[in-house]
Parts: sequence; C-alpha cells; structure tokens
Amino acid sequence: MAEGIIRLHDSDNVAIALSDLSKGASAGGMTLPGAVPRGHKIALRAIAKGENIIRYGQIIGQATEDIAAGAHVHSHNLGMGPHSTDYAIGSESRPLPPLEPMSFMGYHRPDGSVGTRNYLGILTSVNCSGSVARFIAEAAEKDAELNAMPGLDGIVPIVHGTGCGMSGTNEGYQTLMRTLKGYARNPNFGGILLVGLGCEVMQVPDLVGQGRLRPDGNFRYMTIQGEGGTRATIDRALKTLREMAEIAGKAVRAPAPVSHLVVGLQCGGSDGYSGITANPALGHASDLLVRMGGTTILSETPEIYGAEHLLTRRAVSREVGERLLERIRWWEDYTARNDGEMDNNPSPGNKRGGLTTILEKSLGAVAKGGTAPLTQVYKFAEPITERGFTYMDSPGYDPASVTGQIASGATMIVFTTGRGSVSGYKPSPCIKLATNSEMYGRMKEDMDINCGDILDGVSIEAKGREILEEIVAVASGKKTKSEELGFGGAEFVPWQIGAVM
Amino acid sequence: MAEGIIRLHDSDNVAIALSDLSKGASAGGMTLPGAVPRGHKIALRAIAKGENIIRYGQIIGQATEDIAAGAHVHSHNLGMGPHSTDYAIGSESRPLPPLEPMSFMGYHRPDGSVGTRNYLGILTSVNCSGSVARFIAEAAEKDAELNAMPGLDGIVPIVHGTGCGMSGTNEGYQTLMRTLKGYARNPNFGGILLVGLGCEVMQVPDLVGQGRLRPDGNFRYMTIQGEGGTRATIDRALKTLREMAEIAGKAVRAPAPVSHLVVGLQCGGSDGYSGITANPALGHASDLLVRMGGTTILSETPEIYGAEHLLTRRAVSREVGERLLERIRWWEDYTARNDGEMDNNPSPGNKRGGLTTILEKSLGAVAKGGTAPLTQVYKFAEPITERGFTYMDSPGYDPASVTGQIASGATMIVFTTGRGSVSGYKPSPCIKLATNSEMYGRMKEDMDINCGDILDGVSIEAKGREILEEIVAVASGKKTKSEELGFGGAEFVPWQIGAVM
Ligand SMILES: [Ca+2]
Ligand SMILES: [Ca+2]
Ligand SMILES: [Ca+2]
Ligand SMILES: [Ca+2]
Ligand SMILES: [Ca+2]
Repeated sequence: MAEGIIRLHDSDNVAIALSDLSKGASAGGMTLPGAVPRGHKIALRAIAKGENIIRYGQIIGQATEDIAAGAHVHSHNLGMGPHSTDYAIGSESRPLPPLEPMSFMGYHRPDGSVGTRNYLGILTSVNCSGSVARFIAEAAEKDAELNAMPGLDGIVPIVHGTGCGMSGTNEGYQTLMRTLKGYARNPNFGGILLVGLGCEVMQVPDLVGQGRLRPDGNFRYMTIQGEGGTRATIDRALKTLREMAEIAGKAVRAPAPVSHLVVGLQCGGSDGYSGITANPALGHASDLLVRMGGTTILSETPEIYGAEHLLTRRAVSREVGERLLERIRWWEDYTARNDGEMDNNPSPGNKRGGLTTILEKSLGAVAKGGTAPLTQVYKFAEPITERGFTYMDSPGYDPASVTGQIASGATMIVFTTGRGSVSGYKPSPCIKLATNSEMYGRMKEDMDINCGDILDGVSIEAKGREILEEIVAVASGKKTKSEELGFGGAEFVPWQIGAVM
Repeated sequence: MAEGIIRLHDSDNVAIALSDLSKGASAGGMTLPGAVPRGHKIALRAIAKGENIIRYGQIIGQATEDIAAGAHVHSHNLGMGPHSTDYAIGSESRPLPPLEPMSFMGYHRPDGSVGTRNYLGILTSVNCSGSVARFIAEAAEKDAELNAMPGLDGIVPIVHGTGCGMSGTNEGYQTLMRTLKGYARNPNFGGILLVGLGCEVMQVPDLVGQGRLRPDGNFRYMTIQGEGGTRATIDRALKTLREMAEIAGKAVRAPAPVSHLVVGLQCGGSDGYSGITANPALGHASDLLVRMGGTTILSETPEIYGAEHLLTRRAVSREVGERLLERIRWWEDYTARNDGEMDNNPSPGNKRGGLTTILEKSLGAVAKGGTAPLTQVYKFAEPITERGFTYMDSPGYDPASVTGQIASGATMIVFTTGRGSVSGYKPSPCIKLATNSEMYGRMKEDMDINCGDILDGVSIEAKGREILEEIVAVASGKKTKSEELGFGGAEFVPWQIGAVM
C-alpha cells in the first residue's frame, strides 16, 4: 500500500488506484505518465508485450504492448490471449506452507465432526408441514421443561417452499433430498425432528432411508396425517423434543483444532470495492485456515463462469478439474433450457470501473477463495469430504447458495457485502464483512467487520488475520450480529430445479 | 342415491358402487347381471352402443357395445372415441338459471371489491427481506398503540424464497411481479407495507410502478439498505404501520351480495373419494354461487391435462377456449424443457379403482368447478376481471396454486382433501372439505366440513348448499379451522419458473 494505490497480492505486477490520479501524480514511488481513474490498474513496473498481467496473485491476461511503469493498464494494452483460457488443469496447484492450527471450542459429534452451535432442528419434508413446524417451535419456546434444559442454542424450524408438485425421480428431487439429508446431518444440530405432511412427493421414509440419518441417532420423525392433525402433532412433537433435548443438551464445548472448521465463503450485494477489500481479505483468511488444515467452500458458479480456468489450474488432480468443467457444462445446459444464457463478461459499467477481462471480473468473486489448491468439486448439497479449499456448485443467489453450503456441511458462513445484505442462516452463524466504510457506518448493527479500512491503509494480510480470529471466536460461541438480531427463520431456500407440477 | 350406489348428477346414466356388489345383488331398483367392485360404474338404464356415457353431468366416453341396465361399465364396454377429444369450443356452454343472491358482511373497498378479511400486509420483494418482515410483525404484536387499534384482523408478513438470482426480464420475473402486485391489491388487505432489501433483481420501484398499486392509496414501501439496516427498518416500519392501521382500521363490515365473492377452488392430498364426495359437492356450491352472480376459480392445469375438452366445451367464446388451449401448449413446452412430460392418464391403480378414461379421471378434479359456462381463462396471478366460473393456470402443487389464486383476487379458498391437508393462506380464509368420514374423524380440528357423509345418504345438492352457507359465514367473519390454529405464515409460495442464477 502506497499513496493512493493498493496492491492486492505480493506477486501482483499491477496495483489499483484508490482515487482519480492525474498525469504527473506520484504513486508507489512512480510518476504517472498519464491519468488513471479510480478503481483502474497501474503497472507497478515496466511490463513487456506478451508478459502476464497479475492481479490477486493470478493471471488476468497479457500485455498487448510494452507497458511503462506507472502506466494505466486497461483494454488498450491488456488482452486475454488463448493462453488465458487454457484450463491447464493443475498447472498452478501449489500447496501453501502449513501453519500450526489455532483451536476453537466446539461441539464434538460422534462421527468426528465438530459443530459451532448446538441447535435442535425441526426439519420439514414439504411446505405443507412448514406452519406446523413453526407451531411446534413456538410451543417449545413456551414449554417450561424445554426451557429449563441447558446446553441448547435453540429449537429451529427449517421451513421451505417445495417438496411436492414435482417429479419423484429427477434432478430437482435428488437435489432437494441431498439438501434435507445434509441439514439433518449438519454438526451444528444436536438432534433433528423431521415433520412431514404424509402425502407429499418427498416421502419421509425415503428421506429417512435404511441407515442412520444422523451418526448420533438423535433423530425422530412423524407425519401430520399419521399423528391425526395439527394439535396431535404438536403435542407429540413437544414430548419428543423433550427427550431429544435431554440427549442434545449433554453436549459441551471442548477444544478442537480449526482443521475441524468448514467455512462457506459467500458474497452478496457486491459493489466496486468487493474485489479490492473484503473479498481478497477473506481470501487471505481462507488461505490461513487452509494452511491450518481447515476447509473452505467457494460457490456461486454463475459468478466464476468464463473464468473457470482460474480454478482448474489450482485443481489438485485432473479428476477434480474435470468435475468443475462438468458442472460448467451442466450450467450451460440448465440456462439454455430455461431460455437464458451464461454470461459473466465485464459490462460497459464494469469496464468504466476498471475491470478489463472476464478473468479479472471473476477474480473479484474468486478472490474470496484465496490461492490454495482446489482439493475437490461437489454438486450442490453434496457432503464435503475433503479438507482444504473446495468448490460446491450453486447459484449466485445468496440464500440458495448458503443453503447448499450448510447442507454440504458448512458450520460457519463468512459473507462479504457492499450494498449491505442482512440475513442469517440457522444453524450456521454468518459473519458479515462490509466492503466499504460508508455502508459499515450506516449498517453497523448488521455488519461484523469493516473491510473498508483497507482503503485507509490496513493491509489485506492484517484484515485476513482479523477475519480468521473472528471465525475462531464465533466458532467458539460468540454471537454474530445476525444471530443477535434473530435472523435465520426465512433463509432456508433449497435450490429448486425443474418444473413445478 | 339408492342402496349401495351413488349418482353424481341428475343427468348421469351411470352410478358408482359404494361397496363391492355381487352378481344378483339389487341396486337402484335393478338386479345386477354381474359383480361390480367398489368405486366402479353401473349402467342406470340400457345404453346402446355408441351412446355417450355421462358422469358428473358430462361426457366421459361412449359405449363400445350395448350395455344392459345394472351392468358394470368399464374398459370392456366404455371407450373414448375421437368425438370425446374434440375441443368443440362452446358446444356445452349453457348458462345456469340465475338465483337471488345471498349476502355476506364484507369490507367494501374503494374500487368496488369486497374483502372477507381486513389485514395489514408486510409484503417482501425478495427472500433477503423476509426475516425483517417477520421482525416487524413480531414488533407490531408487542406494540401497545397498534394493539389498541380496532378493526384489523392482524398484521401478516408475506415471505418467500425468491426475488433475486433471476433474470429481470423473463417469464419467471413477470410471474413473480404479477404475484406480488396481486397480493398488494387483494381486497382482504386494508393496507400494504412493501419491504425490500435494496439490491435485489425484483426492484421495489418497478413493483410500485407509476400508478397507484392500491386503489385506496394505503400503501407504503421501504428498503432495508435505504433505511440503514435492520433496526432502523423495524423502527420506521412500526411508525408507518401505526399510520396505516389507523386508515385500515376504519373499515367496517357491511352487507354485500355474494356476487362480490371470488372463491378459489382447490384440492390437495386427493383420494378415491375426492371425485365422488367433496369435489362434486364443491362443484354444486360453485354452481349455486355462480347462479347468484359470484365468481369461482378452477386451477391446477396438470390435473386437467388431456381432458381440456371438458372445459373448452364450456367456454363462453372461441377466444376463451383458445386461451385455455394456449396454456395447455405452454405446459407441454414447460415440462419438455425440464426433461419431463405431461401425463394424466388413468394409472393401473386408477383403473382398478374404477376410473376408465382420462376424461373421467380429470373430471374428478374438474368436478370442483361444477357445470357453469367458463367465462374467462387467466395466466397465473393475472387479475380476475370476469364474474362466473373462471380458470387460472397453475401447477397442481397446493401452496403455489393457492398463491396464484389469491394474487388473482381470491378472497376465499375452498379446499377438498382426502389424505388431510393442513394449511392456511393469509390473507384469504381456507375452508377444508374432508372427502371421507374416517379422515374427518381423525382430523376434526383441521377440517371444516365432512363430505364423507355423502356416502351415508346426504345428497350432493344438500352438501353443496351446506358448503355455500359456510362460504357465506366465513366471508362474514367466521373463522375457519386453519385460521383458529394460526396457519398462513409459511404458505406463500410464488410459482418459480426458470433458472435460479
Ligand atoms: Ca456473489
Ligand atoms: Ca450475452
Ligand atoms: Ca451470492
Ligand atoms: Ca389436486
Ligand atoms: Ca392441489
């Protein structure tokens, strides 16, 4: 960081102007040969024609002519050659040096996973049992016996809009099934009561399956039709919850290395600062956590589209790279059959703001994922089994993407926002990172960390460490702003794929 | 109704066996020449080869051979000739004789519509403002000033899972836009506060538009980002709601003819009795209401598929018939592009249960719509402008279908169920009709009327009149079972069409 410019990674050969800089101005020890608008790139040294342009430590294209130190770098001298769109699977998969893991205080589950919260969940198979799940939670809140039980973070209804009026065999059904099973198994739940209506397509027996849906066995289910209506269901559910709470309430927080954390990386309501403050800072935190053996999940496929090369190059194996490309092809088909198209090219507005290539634009989103090797690629809501930096396919739409990450096993979410998203995602706490100080000032009660001060000189490394420390604190029980406000009752949004019948 | 059989309409030439009848048994004054299983059809008189078979007062096919009085009518002697699949638009559009309208006590709105309830609604443009809408409603519940105001049925958050991660121009967007505007205008609301996040695709200014979203002007809006976060939004919303409640609370119930009622016809969790008890009884109630100048809405296109001839024949004009056929073609495309298909043919199980042709199967669902002429066909959530018996396109999926009907203007829902659906749909009360006495006995606290007693001798006409009287009572303020239980907080499910991005 030097007067008026910011370098986003040690290996970058360009920096970003933090304000409109005029010709002859001095920046980074250089005298600028021409004007550079705010948000645009400046060459940090002389760059020869054909050389890679590096931003976020990653290639965003090549110089199309010789570029002088301090010169403006944009469409006139930066292009994306065929090399930039070469998947080159694994070519930039460089393990990061390990770090001694920090530890947090978490709930140790029988399968070895460690939760950051200890909720009882009332999961629903279909919208038609949603109101009853809420009635049960309301009755539980007024239940003296349940309230006297220690050790629980609460009893949360998990309610959604689908589960029937759908084919019982297609991809949409399989995706919802994975999502519901994933919630049932998330380590932030100490027990799950599944409530169905009875006649829905998403049948409770199919969900429950043959084996143990939860490794601790603290799982029960019922249907409203089987119980004989609303009141009978509430009554039996309350009795059942008392038994389940007694088991779940025995859990106590104990030390665990952060290698047990699974953190979903998210952005929503992005702005021009997302790519230069909060996202790279979160990327640095992701790298630190991965170096300590932990797991992070990048998602939001429409936002990396056209720049999948950035991730295939970091893949640890050909198979992992191919899995990402298979997802990309799936999305092309998904949008085409819905009369849309995938398109993530920089818009005229993006270009005015200083984004030159699709690689650079996508890196603004991918920067959340740091620079660690990509260890595995998962479908939406598929269980995360590899540690390190991973990818789970999802829409960019925040509640759907987070829902998938939690179903995949995320016990925490870190969410960057420029416009100011307010949301929470029970059972997993969500840390909000503001990309700019103006919004942080206006929405302090909703934002956990201000990353806008990076523009005032705080380094991305220092901010990344601050984020990691907040992750550890929240994992150990500190409440996030959205938890304090009570968010999480509306944000369970399974990705609905296919026709509603 | 005669020993062991039931005739569903005066003009029917077949009746339905209510139990397994053996050869030689006497039924309807006839001696049966052969056995007839429960739920199957019996000829009420000799039927010549080629003659129409009439059930529910409508053609379900033709005799493929001469049939003796009392004989079993099924696949062996009943077929669907090409005539049965002739759209014959308007050929059976016979106006029903008018009846003197009953009256109800409703809320008269400035545009001439009459509501059955008087709620204040907190409508949301996107899932991302859903939790805040709920927080506002919770705060309102504890607000002394709001609680002291008379005349309101409550303040209800209208929360859903979509509104962003979508194209801002396509059919899915237009459908959601119609749905939200329709709720904002429903006469059961005395005022609407629209709460958005700010950066969503479904922009609040686009929703608000140029004109008056509500004829009474009792409409306000705000965004969380514009207000500066969660608490600031709740605070200003409370002040705003107090002003809105003062206006809305001035409404008082006054007499109105039932020609002002708009009733959504629904079924969910159907069983083998739906088509012989609750659905035809509801159809009779629909006919009575239409004869009094009122409006009913049939929906659930996948359930009438393949038997659209039943409705085109009742269309009042070629244009109305063509509109229905256009919707049918749209569904064929919608399911095809989602790797599915439309198929409503009787399954082997349906056939064992006594359903012979697709016309007959669909009539089980269409029977809810009685026999009145079809005055207009609407897209999902399009404003209903014609009186009489109308059709609004929707999925069969209950919460999505009802959401569309309420957006189209339904001020009440009547819902038949065999398996026992429990649900409510604020702001419109929902009367539940049980198709069988067994389920009614088990789920009495959720069911408003038992139609199972039709099997014990209550006539469809008497039951239809009972349903109409309940409609009038509920329209005048009597609470339904689902209202007493507090349903309606989870069942707003806009039909999501297209890719989630
Ligand atoms: Ca994003
Ligand atoms: Ca394009
Ligand atoms: Ca997002
Ligand atoms: Ca139905
Ligand atoms: Ca239905």
